[in-house]
Amino acid sequence: MSVFTPVTPEQLSAWLKRYSIGALVQMQGIAAGIENTNYFVNTTGGNFVLTLFEKLTAAELPFYLGLTAHLAQHGIPSPAPVADLDSRLFSELNARPAALLSRLRGEVVDLPAPAHCAEVGGTLADMHLAGQSYQGRLANPRGPHWWREAALKVSPFLDAERAALLRAELEFQAQHRCDSLPRGPIHADLFRDNVLFQGSRIGGVIDFYFAGIDCLLFDVAVTLNDWCVHPDGKIDAPRAHALLAAYHARRPFTAAEHHAWQVLLRSAALRFWLSRLYDFYLPRPGELVHAHDPEHFRRILQLRIDPGADTPWV
Amino acid sequence: MSVFTPVTPEQLSAWLKRYSIGALVQMQGIAAGIENTNYFVNTTGGNFVLTLFEKLTAAELPFYLGLTAHLAQHGIPSPAPVADLDSRLFSELNARPAALLSRLRGEVVDLPAPAHCAEVGGTLADMHLAGQSYQGRLANPRGPHWWREAALKVSPFLDAERAALLRAELEFQAQHRCDSLPRGPIHADLFRDNVLFQGSRIGGVIDFYFAGIDCLLFDVAVTLNDWCVHPDGKIDAPRAHALLAAYHARRPFTAAEHHAWQVLLRSAALRFWLSRLYDFYLPRPGELVHAHDPEHFRRILQLRIDPGADTPWV
Repeated sequence: MSVFTPVTPEQLSAWLKRYSIGALVQMQGIAAGIENTNYFVNTTGGNFVLTLFEKLTAAELPFYLGLTAHLAQHGIPSPAPVADLDSRLFSELNARPAALLSRLRGEVVDLPAPAHCAEVGGTLADMHLAGQSYQGRLANPRGPHWWREAALKVSPFLDAERAALLRAELEFQAQHRCDSLPRGPIHADLFRDNVLFQGSRIGGVIDFYFAGIDCLLFDVAVTLNDWCVHPDGKIDAPRAHALLAAYHARRPFTAAEHHAWQVLLRSAALRFWLSRLYDFYLPRPGELVHAHDPEHFRRILQLRIDPGADTPWV
Repeated sequence: MSVFTPVTPEQLSAWLKRYSIGALVQMQGIAAGIENTNYFVNTTGGNFVLTLFEKLTAAELPFYLGLTAHLAQHGIPSPAPVADLDSRLFSELNARPAALLSRLRGEVVDLPAPAHCAEVGGTLADMHLAGQSYQGRLANPRGPHWWREAALKVSPFLDAERAALLRAELEFQAQHRCDSLPRGPIHADLFRDNVLFQGSRIGGVIDFYFAGIDCLLFDVAVTLNDWCVHPDGKIDAPRAHALLAAYHARRPFTAAEHHAWQVLLRSAALRFWLSRLYDFYLPRPGELVHAHDPEHFRRILQLRIDPGADTPWV
């Protein structure tokens, strides 16, 4: 998408009066993101991102904005919501809940090296450590309950082989629940396009709008399945070891996590296979152009089910 | 001063484990500041300033660190304390209370132009607006009570003319209390060396360790007496008008504030005349080299008492 909800400089200037960040200097729509309307906003007080939430409601936002505020206070380079003069983190603008966020700097890395993966692993562990003291509660909106709902809707579109794979994996996951693993707030979507690098260092972790409370290890598996794979979905051992070693150095894995690793790698693949199937076969109006190929995560799932001898572990 | 309390990389690395900011990369002592020990600290997670408090106690720190955290959350470029894994803003390091603060960027401007003064005025107003929702309470530690204490101690060192000026001004201020003016957290020491500019914009406001709850207008007067004066202490009208107009545009002055302006310009001069007399005649061991000439603020006080026709106002 590009900008969904138009905001004029006059409307924004009026709305900014509720903040202590000076007067509007410049605004510019951001042509990225598929869930929200975003603008770069420069004021005399600094540079920010304005987000108008197109789908998330005022009831859901406190978890997400509270989480990024909490993480930023703990030194994680996450988009911190700026509090207004009433110390609220969002308010209405043009009939949408809207927030003003700190602007993070850096570039997306499309072809990460092991050193990038080590940075991501360390920062992910730091996020998990910092998140332990966060009080907000929201179940992972793309957890097992959603898998079953989504599977019902996409199954009619699948051929027999894929339908059988999906059915079998849901059955396997139901028999291997991981609820007793260490839990806390997870990003749940830490793909390459949600991490900004400044040179060799991470300058920003963005887009927390799939976050929720779930097994920390699920987050590691989601991250590894994007950062540490070859185009065919096979794991690249040097990158995977770099990510896992850096994570482990900050938050050592428990014995139960070691034991559950294979299951989590599979569930992380299942979750994105399902959401891509859903977006592919049941797109919302105007979104077809953004659907990713579901087959990529089917292949990853198949590979994680039968990995051969090379599943990486620390 | 330079660094007071030595910290080794090994000691710092161990202490940093209580944070979620990765591992120590580099540390370097900062040879500035007269109240605290400061180090630049770079970790794999970002760049910070470590402050060990040499005089402030664990009982006093929550007001200051809570204030800069609050202001940073409201978009003011102030040094935000990073919360540790227990969400504490400071803890002990080498027998001192110690905090890790976000590192702000920019350069001190020694010879400000009216445009700099406008930036400072606007940011000061934003700080006052954002501070209104801060819950911490601490009286200005250099308020009227301290003036009387300090005057008793420095008077024996003054000649008859200066002693009479001090006595008369204390008497005048006692008869013109401003307690009914708008109040809130004030910086109380917003001199040029406490503002960092990045080009034409403010990148940081630092050193809040004289902050307290007091009349907002007192803060404006303190700021103007440093930013908008000629070397002889006379007010430079273009700079003063720029600062006051920018402040007024963000937080309009009340009628009572207009009325009290002259009194506040005098009390702001008195406060720094007194502290410079104190530091000059009653220095703490090892601090003599840093004492500023008290005469500068005596001249400013004299000029504010008898300003002629040119006291600037918006």
